Amino acid sequence: MISFELSNILILVSTGIGLLWALYNAYKLNQIKIGTPNQYNNFQDDYQDHHSQLLLEIASHIESGAAAFLAAEYRYIGVVIILLALLIFFIVEPVLGQAWTTVAFLVGALTSIISGFIGMRVATFSNYRCAYCAQTKMTDAFAVAYRAGCVMGFALVSFALLSLTILMGIYINWFIKDYRDFQQLFEAIAGYGLGGSVIALFGRVGGGIYTKAADVGADLVGKVENNFKEDSPNNPATIADNVGDNVGDIAGMGADLFGSFAEATCAALVVCSVSPSFYYHPTTFYYPLLVSASGILVCFIVSIFAFVGQKEDFDQVSNALKVQLILSTLLMLPALYYVAYLTLPERIFGLSPVDRQPIHAWLCTVVGLISGCIIGFVTEYYTSHSYRPVQEIAQACGTGAATNIIYGIALGNLSTIIPVFLLAFTAFISYSLLSMFGVALSALGMLSTLTIGLAIDAYGPVSDNAGGIAEMVGYPQDVRHRTDQLDAAGNCTAAIGKGFAIGSAALVAFSLYGAFITRASNSLNKHPLTDLGVNSPLIFLGLLIGAMIPYWFSAFTLKSVGRAAFEMVEEVRKQLAEKPGIRDGTEKPDYDRCIAISTKSSLQEMFAPGLLVILVPLILGLFLGPTAVAGLLPGILVSGVCMATSSANSGGAWDNAKKYIEADLCEIDDIIRGKGTDEHKAAVIGDTVGDPLKDTSGPSLNILIKLSAIFSLVFAGVYDKSAWLLCAMTTSSSGCPA
Amino acid sequence: MISFELSNILILVSTGIGLLWALYNAYKLNQIKIGTPNQYNNFQDDYQDHHSQLLLEIASHIESGAAAFLAAEYRYIGVVIILLALLIFFIVEPVLGQAWTTVAFLVGALTSIISGFIGMRVATFSNYRCAYCAQTKMTDAFAVAYRAGCVMGFALVSFALLSLTILMGIYINWFIKDYRDFQQLFEAIAGYGLGGSVIALFGRVGGGIYTKAADVGADLVGKVENNFKEDSPNNPATIADNVGDNVGDIAGMGADLFGSFAEATCAALVVCSVSPSFYYHPTTFYYPLLVSASGILVCFIVSIFAFVGQKEDFDQVSNALKVQLILSTLLMLPALYYVAYLTLPERIFGLSPVDRQPIHAWLCTVVGLISGCIIGFVTEYYTSHSYRPVQEIAQACGTGAATNIIYGIALGNLSTIIPVFLLAFTAFISYSLLSMFGVALSALGMLSTLTIGLAIDAYGPVSDNAGGIAEMVGYPQDVRHRTDQLDAAGNCTAAIGKGFAIGSAALVAFSLYGAFITRASNSLNKHPLTDLGVNSPLIFLGLLIGAMIPYWFSAFTLKSVGRAAFEMVEEVRKQLAEKPGIRDGTEKPDYDRCIAISTKSSLQEMFAPGLLVILVPLILGLFLGPTAVAGLLPGILVSGVCMATSSANSGGAWDNAKKYIEADLCEIDDIIRGKGTDEHKAAVIGDTVGDPLKDTSGPSLNILIKLSAIFSLVFAGVYDKSAWLLCAMTTSSSGCPA
Repeated sequence: MISFELSNILILVSTGIGLLWALYNAYKLNQIKIGTPNQYNNFQDDYQDHHSQLLLEIASHIESGAAAFLAAEYRYIGVVIILLALLIFFIVEPVLGQAWTTVAFLVGALTSIISGFIGMRVATFSNYRCAYCAQTKMTDAFAVAYRAGCVMGFALVSFALLSLTILMGIYINWFIKDYRDFQQLFEAIAGYGLGGSVIALFGRVGGGIYTKAADVGADLVGKVENNFKEDSPNNPATIADNVGDNVGDIAGMGADLFGSFAEATCAALVVCSVSPSFYYHPTTFYYPLLVSASGILVCFIVSIFAFVGQKEDFDQVSNALKVQLILSTLLMLPALYYVAYLTLPERIFGLSPVDRQPIHAWLCTVVGLISGCIIGFVTEYYTSHSYRPVQEIAQACGTGAATNIIYGIALGNLSTIIPVFLLAFTAFISYSLLSMFGVALSALGMLSTLTIGLAIDAYGPVSDNAGGIAEMVGYPQDVRHRTDQLDAAGNCTAAIGKGFAIGSAALVAFSLYGAFITRASNSLNKHPLTDLGVNSPLIFLGLLIGAMIPYWFSAFTLKSVGRAAFEMVEEVRKQLAEKPGIRDGTEKPDYDRCIAISTKSSLQEMFAPGLLVILVPLILGLFLGPTAVAGLLPGILVSGVCMATSSANSGGAWDNAKKYIEADLCEIDDIIRGKGTDEHKAAVIGDTVGDPLKDTSGPSLNILIKLSAIFSLVFAGVYDKSAWLLCAMTTSSSGCPA
Repeated sequence: MISFELSNILILVSTGIGLLWALYNAYKLNQIKIGTPNQYNNFQDDYQDHHSQLLLEIASHIESGAAAFLAAEYRYIGVVIILLALLIFFIVEPVLGQAWTTVAFLVGALTSIISGFIGMRVATFSNYRCAYCAQTKMTDAFAVAYRAGCVMGFALVSFALLSLTILMGIYINWFIKDYRDFQQLFEAIAGYGLGGSVIALFGRVGGGIYTKAADVGADLVGKVENNFKEDSPNNPATIADNVGDNVGDIAGMGADLFGSFAEATCAALVVCSVSPSFYYHPTTFYYPLLVSASGILVCFIVSIFAFVGQKEDFDQVSNALKVQLILSTLLMLPALYYVAYLTLPERIFGLSPVDRQPIHAWLCTVVGLISGCIIGFVTEYYTSHSYRPVQEIAQACGTGAATNIIYGIALGNLSTIIPVFLLAFTAFISYSLLSMFGVALSALGMLSTLTIGLAIDAYGPVSDNAGGIAEMVGYPQDVRHRTDQLDAAGNCTAAIGKGFAIGSAALVAFSLYGAFITRASNSLNKHPLTDLGVNSPLIFLGLLIGAMIPYWFSAFTLKSVGRAAFEMVEEVRKQLAEKPGIRDGTEKPDYDRCIAISTKSSLQEMFAPGLLVILVPLILGLFLGPTAVAGLLPGILVSGVCMATSSANSGGAWDNAKKYIEADLCEIDDIIRGKGTDEHKAAVIGDTVGDPLKDTSGPSLNILIKLSAIFSLVFAGVYDKSAWLLCAMTTSSSGCPA
């Protein structure tokens, strides 16, 4: 068993290494000078001169567009954060005037904002460098994109872990007077998770709408109506589309996974705070943090290998990325074992009917880690065009767009089977071992390789964007070919990352739910949870309404994308009508107006879904009390996990079926059906349908699942005090306001 | 309080009236003689002569195709029924050698088979008569279609009620020795519901695949590739498509709603059998049956009004149908009140914490009745092109098929909100009043106007088919116009019927679940249910897996339709290649080969989804015991209800958006976009995607929800005895086999 000091030192060391590694990679990226004509003389000829200037110009468009969006978004979100902070301060804090939860909430929100900002900055900073390097060697371009991913991954996780550790350190010193305070302390710290999650919601939803409005809008008006090529600089919406990749895929996903990490840690802390074996040895509270710390160290070692060896073709790149994932998973096994034995007492009691040992905690993390890995590979199987399912969809394009869509929906539905079984059994096994603490540990185990996961996830959009930029700059075809290979390799592994995100969201939400139940069952409550039976009417009511919420939420986000894309289409049509020269490149399109439209409409549209997530549990809790919420949360969870998996995989499969056809791999009746055929048109329709499903509605559902749970955890006390309708219905006044 | 004799007489009288009314309508239909040239001389001229001959020829194709399919289907189902009966006989019957459940199961299955057969016969018998009458007056054509509906509705409900009453009468006489036998008696009678439901599953799934394989296949190859008109007699798949309407929409739906009725009654009986106020007054067990009996009488009175007055335009027809629905709902209110006070004791105790009176039972039925009605109208709002939602979808076709699909999915998702809230509060209120018995009553209340509902539901396909036949026969355009108006009016009300079907399925399943819990919690069990908490690991595991099952199930059915449609496309292509004269009508297509393909592939494809519904609860129960199933069922329920509603309404909306465009009602940028425009093509794609969603996967989900619940109710004792994995995991051997 280690001391407070040693745990703190270990965490400081690993986060320090993480941050330094992020800085080093950022430094290496900064070394790649493209320069401007009057400053540098590394321009060999006019060709380079012209292209580099264009490159810098486009890069600055994207950079300023992304920065403008984030600034606008954070301004909006800032208002929400302040309102929520006031709400928490006045109605959640158990003692008026204290601000433990409120401060934790603000710290969490700030950390998430900074993380998202870093991710976006790194991405916009790297993607044109990646395009630049792709002129010569794929290995170099890969290194740029992956370094960008490492900056994002290591900075985010280290920074998040550090801020949480500092918060905990301060709170423990100031707060704890006797062991009974631990529970209240960690309930306050749950505010940190809530803060992170609220930002994630708006980041995912706003960013998701932004990116898909631009993408769908650009496709609809560009490809369908005007025969522009993908990423054609003549299409006014192209830059907005590129900005979208940065704000949606990178900043949004970073915020999402930061949320998962923060919430999983908070859930673990809240549920273990009721166990005497923890408050007898308070250093054990550092165990969940040390799990993440060990992950940073393991991922650091693994990520070094990414830069070893040549990456000159698709297979080399793809293998390198897969090695990253598998190696980090394998190395985590002993690391987690060591952490468990280092931190936990020999006997863990008070969590399950029989006493447990550190090995059981290790098993929980391992079950999570491994099932996360399998979920990832199943996701890949269903969404990569190297396997049957996507090929079948591509074949279905032979009978038109309708069959493509039907098969795609069926594929998405089928792809839920294995992940759901894995999650169900992961939850079951880890619960059997260590109750809800075990579930939280399995979530932490799944997230322990988060740093690598984030690096790979960020790598994808960077290389994708690099391809777009190469196209716009007018680099020769082989440059685009290189970035396409990088992107394709990234696509497979990004699918794995999405599977991870959903899987971990489910486990995190279930453990948060456990924390909520722990808190709401407290016998000192006015309406303590007594009957949680699935057959009890309030639970059933909650379950049924909960299962519907993902449908409501996804309808909102889908329609938002539709509306925003429509505005984009109108704008592009207007520009083409005003300046017909845009079509052949003799006039310059006004990129900024398209960026402004995406920004404005995504910010407008993100509030309705945001309010839905917060208001439904709040209203149900206020009127029907904590029991109805205890039904609502699992309803949202089980329905949301299935829908998120299905949406993400349908969308991914349509995307890759289109790419399969574009790569001339699809043969029907012995004829290759490539670009321009009816099959391709059908595939494009599928891809367009899938876009908002896989990049807006699907990923936002992750947040819905987690946020509704952590929100209810923080507001559990409020539901307990109100339960107005229940009070009106029952004549007994116990627990009800006079 | 009435006596046994009086209840029996009342039921006999009402079912007698129902059957007589059905016979009378059948007689009136039979009066419409079309005749053959050599027998009758009511042919005024050559035109009539030629067309009538063609009419009879096509009618006989449809008739024999439908009969062949049902015969083949029932042969397959027969094997399943026998296997299941053996399974029930050997492992479910509490005492080996007794056959109470088995006999009830067989009676239920047989009743359902006969009902489906009657429905199909009536439909194929009427649709060409409807086309024939549409030559002169719409009022006559309406009367034909609605009479067909009445035959189906009254025959089915009366027959079902009668067979259940006789079964109950016999069982009560032979079985009951003392009041404790009631519970076991009704557990045996639940077999009746299971029998009906198994047939319904295969009817819905098989019929649904049949009809959509033919429809989608005909559309894909006919409209898209060869520019055939809808229902063109030159399209070889046209007759198969028409047969499909009869076997899928009529026989399948009849079996579905028969299942709901049977299961709701069984659930009510099982849950009230534990209440002492029932076995002290055993005549009260007739209350659920009398609710349905009163429904027959009310619907009889209401249906007479349908034949009063002219129906010469869409509004008159549509209003007449709506009056049917609203009037029957209104008249049911006093009827249900009277039945409650006639049958129930003044004090009902043992079901809820406080004693209840008949008025509370009445309230339960009324809540169900009214919320069913509202759900119906909400469904209409979301799927009729008279309202905003569908018009918005039609507008979205302006930017292509992809936006049409995205908006349609969003619409389907949105349309779940109100129905789910209504169902959640209906369940909550009726549970609060009379516990699970109240929930069963609310289901029965919702189904009390079933006869009218069925009549309207059957009316739709008959008039739809009449239109198809009119087209094939080559009747003048005004005939087709009349049937189209009839069909359009029927579409709106059919949507209402679909809403009803889903809503009642949810309530029925919840009350069956209550019955399952009642049975599985029996303290004499080896593994009595103890911890039903949503946070307990087995329940959560069940919930999560349950929520996924509708996805799995719907993937199966969607892919089946895709595969079967593909075979149809191949066949049509082959025929067109072999006989190019088919295109211009100089050669006759081979309709029967298309019919054979639809029959074969639908029968092949119905087994996988069928096995899924039965095996998942069985395997989970055998290995993890009744607790896991107690989580599984609500998981299937809440996720299935949302998915069924969303699928059915998305599909309905796409269908009507297409019709909206075809009716030249869709204006984009001040230009009407009608048939043949790009907008219309986009709408056709949406319609084709929606077809399997609204007619195969959506309706089959109703059955999934109910069947898994009643299956588990009947097999509860088996789960209890096995629970193998649980036994292997726990060291204690209590309740586990040595």
